[in-house]
This record gives sequence, structure tokens and C-alpha cells, in this order.
Amino acid sequence: MPISTEVIPLGTASAIPTRDRNLSATALRREGEMLLFDCGEGTQFQLLRAGLKRSRLDALFLTHFHGDHLYGLFGLLTTMALLGREDALTIVAPEGLPDILDVIPGLQAHQLPYPLRHVGLAPGFGHAVVFDAPAYYVAARPLEHRVFAAGYRFQEKVRPGKVDGEKAQALGFAENWHFEAVKNGKPVTIGGRTVQPEDIVGPDRPGVSFAYVLDTMPCTAGRRLAEGVDLLIHEATFTEDEAQRAEEVGHSTARQAATIAKQAGAQHLLLTHFSARYADLQPLVDEARAVFPNTAAAEELRTYVLTPPA
Amino acid sequence: MPISTEVIPLGTASAIPTRDRNLSATALRREGEMLLFDCGEGTQFQLLRAGLKRSRLDALFLTHFHGDHLYGLFGLLTTMALLGREDALTIVAPEGLPDILDVIPGLQAHQLPYPLRHVGLAPGFGHAVVFDAPAYYVAARPLEHRVFAAGYRFQEKVRPGKVDGEKAQALGFAENWHFEAVKNGKPVTIGGRTVQPEDIVGPDRPGVSFAYVLDTMPCTAGRRLAEGVDLLIHEATFTEDEAQRAEEVGHSTARQAATIAKQAGAQHLLLTHFSARYADLQPLVDEARAVFPNTAAAEELRTYVLTPPA
Repeated sequence: MPISTEVIPLGTASAIPTRDRNLSATALRREGEMLLFDCGEGTQFQLLRAGLKRSRLDALFLTHFHGDHLYGLFGLLTTMALLGREDALTIVAPEGLPDILDVIPGLQAHQLPYPLRHVGLAPGFGHAVVFDAPAYYVAARPLEHRVFAAGYRFQEKVRPGKVDGEKAQALGFAENWHFEAVKNGKPVTIGGRTVQPEDIVGPDRPGVSFAYVLDTMPCTAGRRLAEGVDLLIHEATFTEDEAQRAEEVGHSTARQAATIAKQAGAQHLLLTHFSARYADLQPLVDEARAVFPNTAAAEELRTYVLTPPA
Repeated sequence: MPISTEVIPLGTASAIPTRDRNLSATALRREGEMLLFDCGEGTQFQLLRAGLKRSRLDALFLTHFHGDHLYGLFGLLTTMALLGREDALTIVAPEGLPDILDVIPGLQAHQLPYPLRHVGLAPGFGHAVVFDAPAYYVAARPLEHRVFAAGYRFQEKVRPGKVDGEKAQALGFAENWHFEAVKNGKPVTIGGRTVQPEDIVGPDRPGVSFAYVLDTMPCTAGRRLAEGVDLLIHEATFTEDEAQRAEEVGHSTARQAATIAKQAGAQHLLLTHFSARYADLQPLVDEARAVFPNTAAAEELRTYVLTPPA
């Protein structure tokens, strides 16, 4: 069965929650593991509503320390403690998080039954792989916001091509090591005949990728995080007629988000982080589609399956 | 129109939220003012759902510093700042809250556009009026929990009795000061005839009262806060068969909550702070009613109107 990598937006509001929109958080699920990008207040409730098990959470990536991206962390850490979590949890965030947690009742390191592995990002860093798993990694770049903020890119690693089963049988492949060898790019000699990997192994299979770019003005780092991704979630706090306001407060318009998606060659764009002033999101979607047609407004609790490039 | 004082439970879960139950918080509304008791994560969402204006909040009373009673404070304070609040907000809580807020990004005192008035409760206090308004006051007493915790009592002040309108007219009352004088217990002489207040003013009208008692084991302070109240909200984390567990973790059973209500002579009891293990709350209600019939499980977002004693 092919591996499915899914992105589930949990909150699409900016700053102030509304009756319909929760605060920033997005889950990524892959083979029973879960990553979380941002953790606004109420994230643990949204995980419950999405049917996502908190115990599956491997790592959490915070973009910046505004409350609408951060204040759900405390409750989520507490709930995982009450549920008896023992596995280490990685938290990638702007530096200083341990000092914050250390004064919040219940979250001192010695009070948690599981270890926290902190990865702190400092202003001035350029590009860093902040989480490296066998099958994927997450990289970060600094964005341009009112406070120090980082965007992230989830990237599955390249997998070797598939071995052509019929050819392999015809060539006498029988042992497991025959297959392993060609997959690892080595020739195999069977019955005096040498088979080169390229004779039998298909092309490398690129992994799927996802970029999470908020909060920020449109910026080069955002574009680079999004280069060729299957899915880009980019903030679109305002419509273009509020471009000046967006710049003043370090945010993007829907049109600017679409321009980043286009320049980066992304496959799909989801807009998020909507100002509470927009009850109807269609104007944001419309102005973005004029630049980048493959755009939608992120829907909370909907599952977006990442599809690899054709 | 008579004054209506209403209590609206916003969260009835203990520790871990469920799909159906939010974390501890209860609003009290009276003549356009609002008080809030506890502020678990998601309280600002529940205020939205209840149609309660955050701008009406005058004072906030925190029982203790476990996350399920505290972590919604940060987002609520932030949202009120974003909405441009300028009025001072009183927060009554165990001492130490300013030190916590001071390290949470966005909540340093100089970052908020409105002043916070902190009232800090320290272990060892016995009984204190912690908020005094013209028409009511709120008193606190220390409870018995794993950490320092305080319970609260909202008490409307006694209002003078009503002046008998027909009698007043017959006796020649015409000026406003005639009425004010007898209401304030002073005789009035009209046309050579002296009217004593007791001749024309009905008995004093006691105000309504409400006690908020969580988290705690059953204790004397809880009983005293609840003496003769119109409504007691008492925690009932467990059923009686978990009495030993309740004692170990500093909580109450439903039966114990009912016993406090009975001993205190409360009019109505609402149970709250239910362990996530109870999908069905009827067993808790049943065991409480066996001791104190006028019991119900608190329903989130339902309005309970406080009715004065007959």
C-alpha cells in the first residue's frame, strides 16, 4: 500500500478566534506519526475533533511567539502528561521556550513524565534542518514578521525506484540480497550474468513535500521553503486592498501568497490565517486564483492528501 | 424590572477535555457586568458560543494554578487587548500570577492596553472579601486541594424593602427625598404628621448568592462559602466508589458534594469537574440526589437564573 501523507488544518483564524475559525495549528500525519505546526489555544480540542491521537505526536514546530500560535501548547503538553506519555517530544521554536515553560505551573521539566527536546532557533540563522527522521526531514528558514518567526518545509526523502518484478524473475533474482543490491545501486551477478541496477530498477521516486509559511510578509525565505512543494500553506491575513495594512503589521495579502506559490512552482496553495473581518473568504480565494489558479481556502478538520509530482 | 443574576457554566471537564466537555470556567452575569470563575483553555471560545461579550468582564477569579483552570487566561487577556480594551481588569488568584504573566510573550504589563489589578491570595489566609462592588461582593476562603486553592462566594448586598406606593400617596409623599428618607431608615414629617420607616417600608430584601467550590476535598471552608446560597457549584470529580482515589488527589465525590450542599443549607447544587471516565453523568447525579435532592449536573452554556430565597 502506498504511503499516505496528510495535512489537516486545525485552525485558520488570525489573532482573534471567531465562532467558525480556530487559532493557528496544522497537523501532518504520515504512517502513524504526527507532526504539528503551531499550537494556538484550543489545538488539543481540534485534535480530538479531527480524531487525531495526541499520543502520535512526534514533533511540534512553532513559527513564533504570538499567542494565537503558542497558547495551546501548555494545555497540550499537560494533557499528554496526564495521559502518561513517556516518549520524548521534540519542540522546534524560537529560542527561549524552556524559560517560558519553566514558569508556567505544571510545565517545569521535572513535572512532565516525558522529556522535551528543545530545538531553539535564533535570529540570524539562515537555513537549518531542524528535524531529521529516516524517511523525511523538516527544514526551517526565518520569515519576515513583526517578531522573529520561522517557516517550515516538510520533505520526504527520495526513495529508490521500484524493481521490475517480471524482469527480476526472468533474470533469476531469487534471494533478498539480489533485490537489496540493485536497489542500493550495485550490480548483481547471477549464473555468470551481471545485471546493472539501471537495467531493472525504475527511476528514483521523489518524496512529497509541504511548506508552512506564516506569519510573514511575502519574502524570499517563504518562496524558497515552497520551491516545488506539493502543498503550500501560506498566510493570507488580508485582501489586496489592505496591502498597506498588511505590510504595517508584517502580514501577507491573498494575492501576495499566490505570487509566492507561483514563483516557487508549488502544486497547490491553501490560504489561512484569515482576519476576523472576512466572514466570507471568497474574495481572498478569487484574488489569489487570478495569480495562481490552484488555490483554496484551508478548511479546518479537512484532510488534504499530499500527492507526489506526476 | 427585577435584576437578574445568571450563572453560565462554560466548562465541566476535569483535567482532560473530552469531545463534549470543556475545561473549567463559569460566568456570572448581572446587569451588563460579568464575572468569571476559573479560565481553562478554550474559555474565550465558550464565551463566544454563549454570546457573552468579553468586553463586559469586570473581574476574574482563579481557584488555583492547575492548567485546566488557568491556561485559557493568556488567550482571553490577549483577545481583550486586540479588541482595544482600556478598562482595568481585576484578577483574583493565588499569589504569583504577575510573575507568570511577565514571562509569557504578549502579556507583560506594558504590552497590554488596559491595567490589570492583581489581588493575590496567599496560603494561610482565612476569609477575605476580594472584590467589593456597590451592589455585591465576592469573598474567598482557602480550600483543601493538592496545591493551594481558593473557593469563592458571590453575594448580592441586602437591598432595603420596597416602599408601599399606595400608602405613600395616602400619607402625602410627593418629593423624592420623602421616599429616600424612609428607605434609609429615617422618619419623615409631612403636614405635621410623622411617618416612621417601618410603617411604610417592607422588610429588607436579601440578595442572591452563589458559591464556586473547586478543586477541593469536602471541607469546612467549602461548606461555609455555601451557607444558605441560592446556587452552589461544587466539584464532583468522581463517584463514591472512587472515594479513596478522590482523597488521594484532593477531589470530591458527588455524594460528598451533596453532603456539603445539605450541611450548608444551599437551595440548589450543580455538580461539575467530571472525570473523563464518566461519559454518562447520571450515576453522579443519582448518588448526590440521595443526599441532596435539588441536584443536577452543570450543563455547559445553559443559563441558571439565581432566584432569591422565598
